[in-house]
Amino acid sequence: MPLGEKKLIQQIRRSARGGGAVVAGIGDDCAVLRVPPGHELLVTTDFTIEEVHFRRDWHRPELVGRRCLTRGLSDIAAMGGEPRAAFLSLAVAGDTPRRWVDGFLKGLLDLADEFKVPLAGGDTAQAAGGIQADIVVVGSVPKGKAVLRSGAKAGEHIYVTGELGGAAAALSQLAESKPVETEYFRQLSRKSGPQARIAVGQWLRRKGLASAMIDLSDGLSTDLGHICEESHVGAAIEAEAIPRAKFGLGKKRVALDFALHGGDDYELLFTSATAVPSQVAGVRVTRIGRTTKSAGMRLIGADGKTRRLKTGGWEHFKGN
Amino acid sequence: MPLGEKKLIQQIRRSARGGGAVVAGIGDDCAVLRVPPGHELLVTTDFTIEEVHFRRDWHRPELVGRRCLTRGLSDIAAMGGEPRAAFLSLAVAGDTPRRWVDGFLKGLLDLADEFKVPLAGGDTAQAAGGIQADIVVVGSVPKGKAVLRSGAKAGEHIYVTGELGGAAAALSQLAESKPVETEYFRQLSRKSGPQARIAVGQWLRRKGLASAMIDLSDGLSTDLGHICEESHVGAAIEAEAIPRAKFGLGKKRVALDFALHGGDDYELLFTSATAVPSQVAGVRVTRIGRTTKSAGMRLIGADGKTRRLKTGGWEHFKGN
Repeated sequence: MPLGEKKLIQQIRRSARGGGAVVAGIGDDCAVLRVPPGHELLVTTDFTIEEVHFRRDWHRPELVGRRCLTRGLSDIAAMGGEPRAAFLSLAVAGDTPRRWVDGFLKGLLDLADEFKVPLAGGDTAQAAGGIQADIVVVGSVPKGKAVLRSGAKAGEHIYVTGELGGAAAALSQLAESKPVETEYFRQLSRKSGPQARIAVGQWLRRKGLASAMIDLSDGLSTDLGHICEESHVGAAIEAEAIPRAKFGLGKKRVALDFALHGGDDYELLFTSATAVPSQVAGVRVTRIGRTTKSAGMRLIGADGKTRRLKTGGWEHFKGN
Repeated sequence: MPLGEKKLIQQIRRSARGGGAVVAGIGDDCAVLRVPPGHELLVTTDFTIEEVHFRRDWHRPELVGRRCLTRGLSDIAAMGGEPRAAFLSLAVAGDTPRRWVDGFLKGLLDLADEFKVPLAGGDTAQAAGGIQADIVVVGSVPKGKAVLRSGAKAGEHIYVTGELGGAAAALSQLAESKPVETEYFRQLSRKSGPQARIAVGQWLRRKGLASAMIDLSDGLSTDLGHICEESHVGAAIEAEAIPRAKFGLGKKRVALDFALHGGDDYELLFTSATAVPSQVAGVRVTRIGRTTKSAGMRLIGADGKTRRLKTGGWEHFKGN
């Protein structure tokens, strides 16, 4: 059953909950939010576009909705912030099945519930074709305490949370039309799947341990490149130290390239002048290298040989 | 020349300016904003989608960009708020001419300059087809002072700013493939064109004159319906009192239906318990009727006869 724009508004409105920071939510020209005194505001926006970020025949709607919001939450996590409210702009073509939209909204709103982030507004429109979503997450952080990408100094440790490359490995199998074990997708749609590292980011910010931080949405090599560029440092990464995701029935570690360049992991990458515990807020934290005075990124292999690491992160697949 | 995603990011980044409320803008996971003490936050998001909100062969890119931002600013105006920062998520297909994107950004950024609203972030992506933009405007208002849609009481005056129906009349001529005088579009792209009524909204809020307010984006009959619904009142509108836009070489007033149901005017519609001056912040303000205890909207004709006014506002044209 196709879904009209008006129905979509009503559906989102029914699903959305106020509370928390939201003084007035859906149903006015703007949402009205309250920010705690002494806090600064964080704002991030992220597209989720059919045929660019997902394919309807590859990705379950619940997972697309969950990942749509995760993209925004993860950006708040990377600043050490607290998410306060989310806004969803959603355009769907008239021929989009209602159950797809239901599934998308369920995935997104279930995750919003987990993080106690109210959906406070947004926009709906008829799309000319396909599905386009834009998620806005507004958060807050004590004044002057946001962890930026630009704070790293040479000679610091580089850490990542969790394990890398799992999403890219699954996508690669789908692209080769190999059946992907359903277990992987069950994982993805549960708490054990991609999870914005809000608690880790806040812990690091409170302890003053992260000098620079970014979330791994485009892949380690790309996102590390952003920290290097904004902080004017280089980096040396130990290939063997990178925590690679286990994938498939055999629980084999994914190939190094997936962990180096794969996107959509939503783990945190950060630098620290001092040692950080190997577990923070229940999440594994792994030292993978150090920042350097000399510019550029280097990868140190198991054999001790060093080669240049280039930005080669995830590219959105291009509509086929 | 097609425009890659990376180029687009660089172009927006070059064009964007920080300052004002923006502590950290484009180039980190989130923008960091400062909200004045004692203020609440306003957030609004609005889509601008090719073949739904505009057509490339009908609308100049500068005008599309200008209107994209106007949609957000106008929502801030309708709360009596001050715009603090804008965020643009922009997806363009690979075959979009660079000069179109340049024109779109110029229109948007020129208007941002006029209102001293920094472009503080957003997202860029390759679109599967066409152009999709989502504008987010963040504003602020003194705590508890936002003018909602829900504050109208029965027996109050109903006012509108400016003149109505001009945009709908022009669109209608385009739809019938009649040449529209270029003068109209020159007007639209200048200050005299659609203009978010920020100063009027703030004046009304400061004076405590507006009990309920909304911006006219979907048309008078639709947007008045929203105020009636949220405030639990009815409305009686005098047809002859509605200020109709003058259109074309002959400067004829547009048909009543355009003023009643046409969208994209971005004027303010508000209710007030007391009389409001006929000009506020240089903008004409016209009393068009009153709120009523009995539900529903009525239109009182020049002959004194009353008929039911139904929500018949602007529908986005459907891609042809």
